[in-house]
Amino acid sequence: MNKTKQKIYEIIFEADTPGGKLFDVALLFIIIISVALVLLESVPAIRDNHLQLLHILEWCITIIFSIEYILRVAIVKKPMRYIFSFYGVIDLLSVLPTYIGLVVAGSHSLVVIRILRLLRVFRILKLTRYTEAGRSLAKAIWHSREKISVFIFFVSMLVIIIGTVMYLVEGPDHGFTSIPRGIYWAIVTLTTVGYGDISPGTPLGQFLAGIVMIMGYAIIAVPTGIVTAEIINPTSDKNTQVCPQCLHPSHDDDAVFCKKCGSRLNP
Amino acid sequence: MNKTKQKIYEIIFEADTPGGKLFDVALLFIIIISVALVLLESVPAIRDNHLQLLHILEWCITIIFSIEYILRVAIVKKPMRYIFSFYGVIDLLSVLPTYIGLVVAGSHSLVVIRILRLLRVFRILKLTRYTEAGRSLAKAIWHSREKISVFIFFVSMLVIIIGTVMYLVEGPDHGFTSIPRGIYWAIVTLTTVGYGDISPGTPLGQFLAGIVMIMGYAIIAVPTGIVTAEIINPTSDKNTQVCPQCLHPSHDDDAVFCKKCGSRLNP
Amino acid sequence: MNKTKQKIYEIIFEADTPGGKLFDVALLFIIIISVALVLLESVPAIRDNHLQLLHILEWCITIIFSIEYILRVAIVKKPMRYIFSFYGVIDLLSVLPTYIGLVVAGSHSLVVIRILRLLRVFRILKLTRYTEAGRSLAKAIWHSREKISVFIFFVSMLVIIIGTVMYLVEGPDHGFTSIPRGIYWAIVTLTTVGYGDISPGTPLGQFLAGIVMIMGYAIIAVPTGIVTAEIINPTSDKNTQVCPQCLHPSHDDDAVFCKKCGSRLNP
Amino acid sequence: MNKTKQKIYEIIFEADTPGGKLFDVALLFIIIISVALVLLESVPAIRDNHLQLLHILEWCITIIFSIEYILRVAIVKKPMRYIFSFYGVIDLLSVLPTYIGLVVAGSHSLVVIRILRLLRVFRILKLTRYTEAGRSLAKAIWHSREKISVFIFFVSMLVIIIGTVMYLVEGPDHGFTSIPRGIYWAIVTLTTVGYGDISPGTPLGQFLAGIVMIMGYAIIAVPTGIVTAEIINPTSDKNTQVCPQCLHPSHDDDAVFCKKCGSRLNP
Repeated sequence: MNKTKQKIYEIIFEADTPGGKLFDVALLFIIIISVALVLLESVPAIRDNHLQLLHILEWCITIIFSIEYILRVAIVKKPMRYIFSFYGVIDLLSVLPTYIGLVVAGSHSLVVIRILRLLRVFRILKLTRYTEAGRSLAKAIWHSREKISVFIFFVSMLVIIIGTVMYLVEGPDHGFTSIPRGIYWAIVTLTTVGYGDISPGTPLGQFLAGIVMIMGYAIIAVPTGIVTAEIINPTSDKNTQVCPQCLHPSHDDDAVFCKKCGSRLNP
Repeated sequence: MNKTKQKIYEIIFEADTPGGKLFDVALLFIIIISVALVLLESVPAIRDNHLQLLHILEWCITIIFSIEYILRVAIVKKPMRYIFSFYGVIDLLSVLPTYIGLVVAGSHSLVVIRILRLLRVFRILKLTRYTEAGRSLAKAIWHSREKISVFIFFVSMLVIIIGTVMYLVEGPDHGFTSIPRGIYWAIVTLTTVGYGDISPGTPLGQFLAGIVMIMGYAIIAVPTGIVTAEIINPTSDKNTQVCPQCLHPSHDDDAVFCKKCGSRLNP
Repeated sequence: MNKTKQKIYEIIFEADTPGGKLFDVALLFIIIISVALVLLESVPAIRDNHLQLLHILEWCITIIFSIEYILRVAIVKKPMRYIFSFYGVIDLLSVLPTYIGLVVAGSHSLVVIRILRLLRVFRILKLTRYTEAGRSLAKAIWHSREKISVFIFFVSMLVIIIGTVMYLVEGPDHGFTSIPRGIYWAIVTLTTVGYGDISPGTPLGQFLAGIVMIMGYAIIAVPTGIVTAEIINPTSDKNTQVCPQCLHPSHDDDAVFCKKCGSRLNP
Repeated sequence: MNKTKQKIYEIIFEADTPGGKLFDVALLFIIIISVALVLLESVPAIRDNHLQLLHILEWCITIIFSIEYILRVAIVKKPMRYIFSFYGVIDLLSVLPTYIGLVVAGSHSLVVIRILRLLRVFRILKLTRYTEAGRSLAKAIWHSREKISVFIFFVSMLVIIIGTVMYLVEGPDHGFTSIPRGIYWAIVTLTTVGYGDISPGTPLGQFLAGIVMIMGYAIIAVPTGIVTAEIINPTSDKNTQVCPQCLHPSHDDDAVFCKKCGSRLNP
């Protein structure tokens, strides 16, 4: 019994054995098909003609995923740790909406959250270089969190003030029916999205909008500058190691010897 | 009496004592509620149904802020310095619009300026790292002010010329009813906002617009480059080493000898 | 006979002799004219009036290109290598659509692929500095491929989830008729293109859209940061120094000692 | 006589004497007023009511500028050199459109070219730091010219191919009435302007547009990267000076002594 369990564990949780690899790759395909089904079902023309087929496929996949989830919980040594891990939560959220859809109509579209299960692809296919690239990007964004938070805080204040001024200047006649809509317009404009569903109609409003847009030039440069600076000079690489002999600073994290005088660095 | 004053001073101006902290946090909440009220009141559906409630709340908050402002002026040692400080002006502007609104209809929406009072959040909650991040961003933008000013000067000239040419090419039939509108279009296009409320209709106009847009590619790169360069190599870091002999400033951080007179730099 | 072949080879494949240069420059002009013809023919007003003239010119050019292609295949030493080379495929694709157009109507517009033949311009006109600039750009993008792939992978997942949520929130009444359309909207918004053909109509949808747009701020900064970092610090420059003792690669350019084993690096 | 000429020369061409400064500042004001007049005249409401006043003012300014131009030509030592200099051409173009407007209706709006005369403001007001900032920006763009040219060349080819494919996929029903319009759409999309005057209507077209937009992500990063890299590491500063003693490379252009070993650098 224990051996069977060990075997299932290898197949489900690991991707080193042929069986485990096959299981994982098959899972990736089912996830993609499952997401494709949700997309197709939402298209009226397809839904009207193939509703039954889509429902059957959807339930098959949900049952497969449910069995897989139960197996994972049953087989793993620390079930609680798995259940509350990132992938554990994603795995549960991948099946719940279909069951909830039985009660609450429409909610079953939320199974697209299954797409997050694809994140395992990097581990399964051993795309180490991509994992590393992704990690260094995530690190760059993570290290920029304070600057980006402050930036978003200021942009939020700016956007509220701009939205109010434009609401007062333009008024409901040109689509600025309330301050929240003015704020919505300010965000659409400052981020240079510019739908055009609301746009200033009065000369004064257009003049102010022009200033906001040119200001947006400098504003959009800020997050770019933050992230670029982080990617070029990762914070953690800075000054972590100083040579005890020649005191030359800023050695790489993986350096063992000083690159200037050749003496050993402290660990 | 003096002791009471000292106590009030601690509560209102400082955030180190429990009382002061409580006061400041309460204030932050009232500010947020107050801004939310203004946003809600501007929504027609909400204004029509809850006008009286909103007015009462608005006046309660205004009176709280008024009392607070008077207290601040009364308690501080140098009232004039507070009144004309950044926060002093903001605090006054946070209550004025409601009173002015009694005379001039509609102007009371300007109380959203209260949102700027939230800037105190960093000091109150001791978000030092965020304050620092904000300061370094502000410094990067401040050090770029000359380049950005020159950039905006050139963009302004460019936009006036492009706007005039498009006005002559497209004419009033395609929405270019005047040169200012042409300039508005040029700004909307160069900043890549692109509402689409005015867009070229003639083949020649579309050809010119295409050139303007591709030019905009290179143009949008300029402020990004300026700010990014400032964040990566802050200007102030260049002046850290001054030659003790010839006093030549701005040596590189890793320079050992003065690049002008050849004498050794202090470490 | 062999001498004639050699002569033709020089004229067609090389650009060093006066004849070869003349041939190549003439070819560049014919390519540009040919692409211009396709563009003009697609304009209804021009097609209706000059259809016959355009067809005659199109066929003349196609015959010239066909003869040239046959000559290239006949004259080159390794025909197979030419046929399956980048330029060989382009040269073939430059004539095929006209012939296919005899059978399948409309497909002959695909001859615009001829524009890719213009890539030879750099070699022909000896624009070495431009070739080099192009190569360094291509290298920067190529070295960023892993980061950009991971980035596009995450953006794809994000866009599917955002598209689904907006489809559920907004529904068919505001243009979100299906999840794929929601995804289309999410791409249009996140990339800051913002057509405005679909835009959120409900307050909740506009609120979510605002968050997506501000998120887009940070997201658009990522590829810029990746490419900028690559252009500033090309990856290949990091591997210039290899330790002669432990063969550890990728030392900094200014390193004097190996950071792994401490032995002196060759200058 | 010669002395008068010298005096006038000082007033018109120089900004060091009080008279010269006054003349230049007055000129700046007249230029701004003159451009404002052209903008105002193009607004229908203003033109209809104040046409005569605007015409009189316009002619006054043109006569002032004409006299100034004749004076400049008469007073300068090498008239030909002035006439064909950048400012000489601008000065002439600033008056010509008004005279041409007597014959060709509407063309007089081109006097907005006068705005370029404002470029003198930096020299007149001795805004040296701004001139320097402008020069370093211009240098960064100038040094990037090869990369930007190659970039625009590739984008042009890309845009022609994308425009043709979208014309074939979408057809005239969704606004893609000709290939040039398809190319216009491709430019509007790739640059993230996104007017929405033409937008894909078929599912296949929207799918392709989605790919084009995500591709545009990486593409918009390229010019930003180019310009940013130039601003951070100006090309001319690279490797120009190598120390003859210790061979340390990459000294600043203005360095006289090696910053590593202190020996004199060759001029």
